[in-house]
Formats: sequence, C-alpha cells, structure tokens
Amino acid sequence: MPRKLQNEDSILRKIAESSQSSQGRGAAQPVALGIGDDAALLRPKPGHQIVLTCDWFLEGTHFLREKHPPDAVGWKCLARAISDVAAMGGAPRCFLLSLALPETHTGRWLDLFLGGLRPASRKFQCALAGGDMTRRDEILINITVVGEVRAGSAVLRSGARADDILYVSGRLGEAELGLQIVRRTKGAVSKNNPLTRKHLYPEPRLALGQWLSKKGLATAMMDLSDGLSSDLPRLCAASAVGARLERAKIPLVQSRDLALKHGRDPLQLALHGGDDYELLFTVPPRKANLLPKSFRGVGLTPIGKITQERVLLVLEKNGRASQFTPGGWDPFRKRL
Amino acid sequence: MPRKLQNEDSILRKIAESSQSSQGRGAAQPVALGIGDDAALLRPKPGHQIVLTCDWFLEGTHFLREKHPPDAVGWKCLARAISDVAAMGGAPRCFLLSLALPETHTGRWLDLFLGGLRPASRKFQCALAGGDMTRRDEILINITVVGEVRAGSAVLRSGARADDILYVSGRLGEAELGLQIVRRTKGAVSKNNPLTRKHLYPEPRLALGQWLSKKGLATAMMDLSDGLSSDLPRLCAASAVGARLERAKIPLVQSRDLALKHGRDPLQLALHGGDDYELLFTVPPRKANLLPKSFRGVGLTPIGKITQERVLLVLEKNGRASQFTPGGWDPFRKRL
Repeated sequence: MPRKLQNEDSILRKIAESSQSSQGRGAAQPVALGIGDDAALLRPKPGHQIVLTCDWFLEGTHFLREKHPPDAVGWKCLARAISDVAAMGGAPRCFLLSLALPETHTGRWLDLFLGGLRPASRKFQCALAGGDMTRRDEILINITVVGEVRAGSAVLRSGARADDILYVSGRLGEAELGLQIVRRTKGAVSKNNPLTRKHLYPEPRLALGQWLSKKGLATAMMDLSDGLSSDLPRLCAASAVGARLERAKIPLVQSRDLALKHGRDPLQLALHGGDDYELLFTVPPRKANLLPKSFRGVGLTPIGKITQERVLLVLEKNGRASQFTPGGWDPFRKRL
Repeated sequence: MPRKLQNEDSILRKIAESSQSSQGRGAAQPVALGIGDDAALLRPKPGHQIVLTCDWFLEGTHFLREKHPPDAVGWKCLARAISDVAAMGGAPRCFLLSLALPETHTGRWLDLFLGGLRPASRKFQCALAGGDMTRRDEILINITVVGEVRAGSAVLRSGARADDILYVSGRLGEAELGLQIVRRTKGAVSKNNPLTRKHLYPEPRLALGQWLSKKGLATAMMDLSDGLSSDLPRLCAASAVGARLERAKIPLVQSRDLALKHGRDPLQLALHGGDDYELLFTVPPRKANLLPKSFRGVGLTPIGKITQERVLLVLEKNGRASQFTPGGWDPFRKRL
C-alpha cells in the first residue's frame, strides 16, 4: 500500500487532536477558539494585562536532531518560552506553535515531539491555541506564549535600585553541564540524571515568579537563559545600575569532579552556561528577611548587590574586585 | 577599521529604535511595555477578545532572497499575518517579530527590511512589541500578530449555512501572476506594476472585515492565502457544508493576454494562485442586497452559493457541474 500523503491540513489535524487531550476537562478554558480558524480567540481576564513572548527553537542552533530526544524538544520549546512569562511574575494561558518539518519527520518524530509538548502544556496550564505548519529540510520551531499578570504587578528588568540584593534561584551551570553529558552520550540519554533532565526538561520557575510579584518583594527580575554573565548586564542596563557579585556565593553545580571530568570549571559553567531558566531578581535590603532560603525546594541565594556605579564587578575570595565580562550565549557570537 | 561586531543586543536595539519611530505620537499606545524585557505587556480593551495568529515567512519557501526586495519581505511578512486578523473582523494591535539572519544581512539588508516593516506597522496600526533574534545561514521569519475584536463578533469559518451566498473581494490570481513577473524580471522589480505590487506589498482587507463583522452581514469568513481551491474546502469543512461555484462569475485578472504570456490560464490562476489575501465570505440571501458592489474601491463579487450537500462543485458556462479539486498552495505538496 502506498504511504499516505501527509499534507498540511492532516498534520494540523493531528496536532489539534493532540492539543484537545491536553486541556484538562475541569479547568476553565481560556481559549474561546483554537486551531482550525484564521486566528485564535482568547478571553482576557478583567484587571489583567496580557504578557507576550516568542522564542526560536532551531535545529543546529538550539538543539541537535540526532542528540536531543523528540519529546525533550517538544517539552523544552514550550518550557523555555514560558520561562519568560515566569520572569514577569505572570501566569501562562496559551501558546501558538509554528513548526517546520522535513516530510520524514511528520510521522513518528512528530508523535514523540507532541508526546513531550502535551505534558508541558498540561503541567504549565498553557493550552495550544493555534499555529502554522510548513515543510522544510531542517526542523524549525517558533513558540509564542500568551500569559496574564495582574495590571501593574509585572516585575520588569528595569526596577533594580542601588543597594538592592541580587538573588538567583537554583544552581547555575547545571543545564550546561547536562548538555555536555548529552553530547558525549552514545545512544539514548538517561532521563534520570538530574543534570541532563535540567538541560532537556527545564522547569520554568512560575510559582516563584508569581509569588515574588504577588508579595511585592522583587524590584527587578529576569530569567537566566543565556548565562549570568550575559543576562546580568541586561538587567543592569535596563535599570541603569551596576552590580557587585560575590564569587564565593554563586551556587555552583554540586559535583565539581563531574564538571572537571567534562573539562568545565564549575564557576565558568555558572557564569557562562546557558539554558538554566532560573530567575535572577533583586530585593530591597529591608525586605530581604522576608525571603526564605528556599521556595518549594528551589534554593534562593543572595549572590551580590546592586550598585549606583554602572560597572559590573566580581569580588574574589581574597577581597580583590575584577571587571565582569559577558561570555554567555549570544547567537551572533557562537553556535551550539 | 575592523567591522564592528554585531551581536544580538545591538541588533535588537536597532530593531527597537526602528519600531519607536513607527508608533504615531498622538495614537493611543496599546503596548504598555515593548522590546527590552523578558516579555511584552499589552492592555486588553474592555469588552473585547484577543485575536492571535502566527505565520512563517521563510526564504526559499515563501520568498526568494535574490528576487524579493528586502523592503517587500518586511512589508509582506507583517501584512499577511495581519490578514488573518482581518479575516476574523478584528483590528490588529501589536506584533512579535522572530528573525533569524545570516551575519551578512544584519547591516544594509536589515535596514531595508525594517524600511518595509515600519510603514506596514504604521499603516495597519500594529506596533512592534517584542521578538527574538538569532543567527542562521538562511533568512527565517516568524510573525505573531495580536489583535482585538468585540467579544462575540468575530466572524469564524464555521458559520456558513446552506443557501448563503459566497463572495470574494478583489480579483483572484493577481498575486500569483505578480509572482511570475517577479521571477522573470532581471534586476529591480517595478513597484508601479499593480500585479507585482499585489504580490510584494499585499494589503490586508482590514476595513472590509471589520465592516462585515460590525454590520453582522457575514456568517463565515476567511482570507485567501493558499488559493480558492485550497481555502474554500477549509471553510466548507469548518461549516459542515458544501458549495457550488459559478465558474463565469469568478473575478479574474484583468489582462488575459498577460496571463497567457506567462503561461497561465486566468481561471487556473484564480482557482489555485496563492497570496491574494482577499476575503472569502458568506452572506445570507436576505442580507445580500445590503452588500455594495464594491467597498472602498475593492470589488465584492458573488461567486456561488453554499449547499447542504457536502460536495464542492463548479458550474460551467454550459450548465454542467464538475467536482472541485484542491490545487492551491500546500507546503507539504510543493515549493515556491
């Protein structure tokens, strides 16, 4: 029997069917009209603002076709876009999926991809609302996430003030070390290793971001996607401030030996490693005592403070301060 | 002097500066927070629903790097995404731009591209709110448009009923003929030729879509992006109806000779040509007399009627009816 011709409509139908089963039955349906029309319709919640973000997820740039399991590609393309909503203190509501696939990938690969996308959509309560589909030799993904935040309570990058204390959630460099393990693994990657899990199935810090926004604790916030050394300068530039990091306080990967085995220094991983999707945020000193040491099992660590002077310094253990150099992920400097 | 290193932040700054000059000073600013943070913030209008749509615009698939002027790429990537909002009867408010570019295209090409995107953004009152930028050997574009429509007044694909009259705006096949002219032109393409203009600088039928929605005239509506023979079956499927087209009534390109010179039959162009971005809509017979012959200079032509029987037929001039075969643009069937 000849292989059934896959066309755009039949692929869209497959994706739409997959998305229907990902919307919980009891949950309020934010999407008034989803896939199958010219556009999707969303009912905005009174008293809220709409949060909008989009992210590329491209083969060869952001993931490797032969190395990354299709379900991890599905999970991660959505999770990382949702992380931007977490960084505003918002809640995701729905997403649009733009997918370009080789014809060879519209069967099993697409099924596995949707098998990773669906649980992420369910877990983060972010329903598939629409998208666009085309054929391409390379796998190209673009995700738009639409979220909501109570009007006036979004935490921006621009609110940091001198003397604010700089915090990060979790440990930095874990995802980068996870990537190194994935690259060196022959055959299937273990999903039980917490480092490869952090790289393949990141968990946006939604609850933490919403809690910081609701309690009015954070003056500025962003997510760490490109690495601390690239992202902190962005927060400082937006707030027109500088920062002084304490090198010894930065939460590193737990196994120094494993990092070194992969040729990586834990501090370099923490400064320049991408894809952690932890939150970087600033808290006024008078509110710092309201911050727990950890939130739902994720550590919250003060790593330095904001300064009036617009310079980025790292305070070494010996008390010497040195200038901070961006070395994280920049697609116009390097590739995966 | 060495060429200045372009990095992601500096390119984003260039795009952000370009977008600021495109927001009219007097106009109400729908975007509370634009480029430069983790996500954009939008104030929803009370009593309205959010309209969401996204579109690929990829080199080699949707445009040709060597043939399509960069400003036309900038104009068209936005205009065609806005067309989906027009097809719901909505008004665009803002858009997200995801751009992947070769490093060689971050200078002059990007300037020209923004020089086409900016006037489209201004003309259709759709402000740049954010985006994502990366490096890639090929030019990849994805546009998300966010619009609004009064709650409950969006015109869907699914509302067509038996005996409704089927209308199209404008003439069909013009953009496809324009593409043929662009392909055969050596050197710069004339921007005065209405056929190449229709292909390069399409005008989404926003005013018409909004008027049809406001007056409650259209029971179903969509935009023609892939060609009548591909798009009409989608409207019929969504409405669970069929249609009978009258071949002689379909508004064709004005110059039959020019079409034939390019090896195209005008009727085939009208049935299967893509990229017209005209509106296809259905009107109940009792309201048909409320519809003018043209709206703001764009013809409105009845081309057939909706039938209970779920079959698509074309009525020939000799009265014979034949089945309708989709032959328009499907990215999984053919390429540009």
